[in-house]
Amino acid sequence: MTDTLSTAARTVSAAPVATPAEPAGTHAPVDAAALIADMGRRARAAQRALAQATPEAKTAGLMAAAAAIRNAVPAILAANAEDMAAGRARGLTGALLDRLALDEGRIAGIAKGVEDVARLADPVGHVMEEWDRPTGLHIARVRVPLGVVGVIYESRPNVTADAGALCLKAGNAVILRGGSESFRSSRAIHAAMVEGLTSAGLPADAVQLVPVTDRAAVGAMLAASGLIDVIVPRGGRSLIERVQTEARMPVFAHLEGLCHVYVDGAADPEMARAIVMNAKLRRTGICGSAETLLIDRDAAPRMLAPIVTALLDAGCEVRGDEAVQAVDPRVVPATEEDWRTEYLDAIISARVVDGVSGAIDHIEAYGSHHTDSIVTDDQATADRFLAEVDSAIVMHNASTQFADGGEFGMGAEIGISTGRMHARGPVGVEQLTTFKYVVRGQGTLRA
Amino acid sequence: MTDTLSTAARTVSAAPVATPAEPAGTHAPVDAAALIADMGRRARAAQRALAQATPEAKTAGLMAAAAAIRNAVPAILAANAEDMAAGRARGLTGALLDRLALDEGRIAGIAKGVEDVARLADPVGHVMEEWDRPTGLHIARVRVPLGVVGVIYESRPNVTADAGALCLKAGNAVILRGGSESFRSSRAIHAAMVEGLTSAGLPADAVQLVPVTDRAAVGAMLAASGLIDVIVPRGGRSLIERVQTEARMPVFAHLEGLCHVYVDGAADPEMARAIVMNAKLRRTGICGSAETLLIDRDAAPRMLAPIVTALLDAGCEVRGDEAVQAVDPRVVPATEEDWRTEYLDAIISARVVDGVSGAIDHIEAYGSHHTDSIVTDDQATADRFLAEVDSAIVMHNASTQFADGGEFGMGAEIGISTGRMHARGPVGVEQLTTFKYVVRGQGTLRA
Repeated sequence: MTDTLSTAARTVSAAPVATPAEPAGTHAPVDAAALIADMGRRARAAQRALAQATPEAKTAGLMAAAAAIRNAVPAILAANAEDMAAGRARGLTGALLDRLALDEGRIAGIAKGVEDVARLADPVGHVMEEWDRPTGLHIARVRVPLGVVGVIYESRPNVTADAGALCLKAGNAVILRGGSESFRSSRAIHAAMVEGLTSAGLPADAVQLVPVTDRAAVGAMLAASGLIDVIVPRGGRSLIERVQTEARMPVFAHLEGLCHVYVDGAADPEMARAIVMNAKLRRTGICGSAETLLIDRDAAPRMLAPIVTALLDAGCEVRGDEAVQAVDPRVVPATEEDWRTEYLDAIISARVVDGVSGAIDHIEAYGSHHTDSIVTDDQATADRFLAEVDSAIVMHNASTQFADGGEFGMGAEIGISTGRMHARGPVGVEQLTTFKYVVRGQGTLRA
Repeated sequence: MTDTLSTAARTVSAAPVATPAEPAGTHAPVDAAALIADMGRRARAAQRALAQATPEAKTAGLMAAAAAIRNAVPAILAANAEDMAAGRARGLTGALLDRLALDEGRIAGIAKGVEDVARLADPVGHVMEEWDRPTGLHIARVRVPLGVVGVIYESRPNVTADAGALCLKAGNAVILRGGSESFRSSRAIHAAMVEGLTSAGLPADAVQLVPVTDRAAVGAMLAASGLIDVIVPRGGRSLIERVQTEARMPVFAHLEGLCHVYVDGAADPEMARAIVMNAKLRRTGICGSAETLLIDRDAAPRMLAPIVTALLDAGCEVRGDEAVQAVDPRVVPATEEDWRTEYLDAIISARVVDGVSGAIDHIEAYGSHHTDSIVTDDQATADRFLAEVDSAIVMHNASTQFADGGEFGMGAEIGISTGRMHARGPVGVEQLTTFKYVVRGQGTLRA
C-alpha cells in the first residue's frame, strides 16, 4: 500500500499539468492516512538534508524556482483556465473567481515573491544567545528549522509558492494541501517550483503538494502529529476553526482579527480621527483593519462627532451605542453581537467607555488578541494600555493596519498568529524556526 | 452548579488540613469539567492581576510563601503522616513511600527552593529585541507571561511548591493537580503557600490546587484548551504518555531521555572513558543519564576495551553488539529492543558504528531528541555531529548529565522538553513566558 501510494505521490510531483482527460480531484479513493504518512516520512528525510543546506544553496534553489515559474507561464495559465472553467461551471461567485484567476502579471508577482524570500537573511544557524558556565561549559542557543510544516489553503493558488518558499528558506520541508478550486493551478505552480529546486540540487520532497483534493487528506494531515510539526491554515473562518479544533499539533493561525482603536481623553483629536479612518478604511478586508472604535467618556463630547461624521461621510456604516447614535441619525444601533463581529467590510461598531480601564475591559471581553491600538498624548495611560491589553500586537498612536509581517520588517509572512506559543503575531521566516542548545566542553564532567 | 463548585473550590484553598474524618479523594462525585472550567476562569482573572504585578511584589509574595511553609511544618508533617499511613495501608512500595515522605529537612528544602525562585531575575517586561521602521514605527518584542499553566504530577508533594513558585515568578497563574497518594501533603503545602502569597497582596487564585483526586479531573484539564494555555506533566511514563496523547493544548515534557555518547576515532581515550563513566553512572535515574554508547569502528580496537571494562568493573551491566561482546565475557548480547530502552539504571547498551555518520543515523533512528554527546578532538567531526543530531541539547566533550536547567544557569526548571515548539530543552522561568509586540507611533498611518 505504502509503495503504491509513494509511487503515486511521486508521480504527481513530476507529472505534467492535468489534461482535460484527467480532471482534478477525481482520483480513485485513496487511504488518506497512508498517503499523508508516506508524504510525511519523505518530508522528514528531505528536511534532514535541507537543515544542512547552506544559505547559498537555499537562495539558489529559490531563485531557480522563481525562474522556473516564469518559464512555466503558459502551462500555469492553461491549468488556471481549466480551474476557472470548472469554477464557473460550479457557479463560484465573482470574488472567489477573482481570487483564483491568474494572468501573466499575477504569475510574475508570484515569481517575484519567491525571489524576495530567496533574498531574506537565512535564520538557520544564527546564535541567539551564548554564555559560559562556571563548570567550563560554553552554551549556545542556535536557530534550527522547525521541521515539517503543513499548509492547508483554499482558493488562492499563489499560496503554493509563497508558503513553500518561506518554509524552505527556514530549512523546513512543507506539505501543501491546496483547495480543490485551484488544484490544477497549484499543481502547475508546484511542478515548476520543484523543477527549479531540484535543478539547484535541493530535494524534490522538500516541497510536496498533496496529490488529491479529497477532504479526508485534511483530516489525515491534522492527525499526523509526529510527522507534521506545525500546521498553518490559510483561508476562511470555517477552515481555521476546523484546523484549530482537530489539529493534533501546534497551529499558527488567527481565527479573526477583531481589532480595536481606543481614543483616550488625552488624544489629539486630529490624530485620533486620522488613525481611526486609516485603521478602518485603508483596506477593510484585512485582519488588521479595525472593527470597533472605543472612545473615552471624557473625550466623547469633543471628539466623537468629528470621527463618526468622517466615517459616515466616507461611506462607512457605524453601529453605535446610545451616545454614538446621538451624534448622527445615520448611526445604526449596535447589538451585543456587534462587539463580537469581524466585519471585514466598511462597517464599524463604536461605543463610549470609561477611560482606559473601560477600554481594556471591553477588549479583554470581546477582542481576539490580535491587534489593538490606543490614541493618547498621555504616556502613562498609553503604557497602561500597552501593558494590560493581552494581544499579540499592541499599539500607541498608530494604525492597526500595520499588523503585517512586511510592515514589521520581516520581509514576508505566512500569516499572523493569535496563539500564545512559539510564534505570536506575524509569522515570518524566523518564526518558522526553533532552536537547540549546543554545549561545548573540554572533557567536562558533572560533579 | 458553577456557584456551588466555586464555593467548594474556594473553601479548599482556605480549609484546614484534612482531618482523619475527611479522607482525601473521597468527596462526593463532582462534575470535573465544570470544576476545572470554574478554576480556569478564576485562574485567568488572577493571571491578569499577576501579569501586572511588579517584580518586587512577586518576590515578596514568594518569600512570604516560603516563610508560611516553614511556619506550617507541624501541619504539613501531620498531613504527610496521614498520606504515609494511607500509602502503607494501600501497599505502596518503598520507593514510592520514600518519594512521598517529608521530614523537617525536606520541608526546609522545599521552602528554600521557593526562596531561590523568588530571587531569580524577573523575566516579565524584558525587551527581547527592538527596532525602528522607515514608517516611523518603533517595534519592541517584550516578554509577557504565558498565561495559565496546568501542572499534573504524581507522588512528590514538593512539586506543589516548586512548580507553583516557578509559574508565579513568570507571572502565570497555575492549576496544580497532585496525585492521590500525596494529596493531603500537597494540600497542606498549598494552603501555606496561598497564605503567604495573599499576605503579600497577591491573588489567592494565582496558585490553585484541584480539590479532588478524581481521575476525571485530569481529563477535564487536558480538554480545557482556552482555559489552560500549557500543560506540564511531572511523573512516570504512563502519565506523560496520557498527557501527550490527550492534551488539547501544548505540553512541555519529555517522554524519555534516551541519551547517547558517541566516542569518535579522534577522541582522547582517557577523556572518552571519563565522559562515558560520568554520563552513565554519576546518577543513573535522571533523564540526562546516557543509555547507549556508540563507538567508532576505527576507535574500537584501542578504546572499546578500556571503556567497557571500566563500566563493568563499576557494576554497570553492558549489553553489546558482537564487537562489544568480544571485549569481555560479562557483556550481555544486546537486542533490537535495547537500542530503544531508557534503563534509568546501571545498564548501558553499546555498539560499534561507522564513524560520525553511523552515530548520527543511529541517534536519529533510536534517540528521543533529548541530549546527545560526541567525544572527539576533531573540530570538523564535532561540528557535523552538533549540526546534524536533531536533539534539544547536543554536546561536545561533555557529559550528558549536564542536561539540567540549574547546570544551564536557569536557576530552576520545571522540566525538560523534547518538543520542538516554544520551550525546547530545560524549561525555566524564561521558557514559561511568551512575548507581545509593542508598537509606538506618532499618529502613524499606513500608506
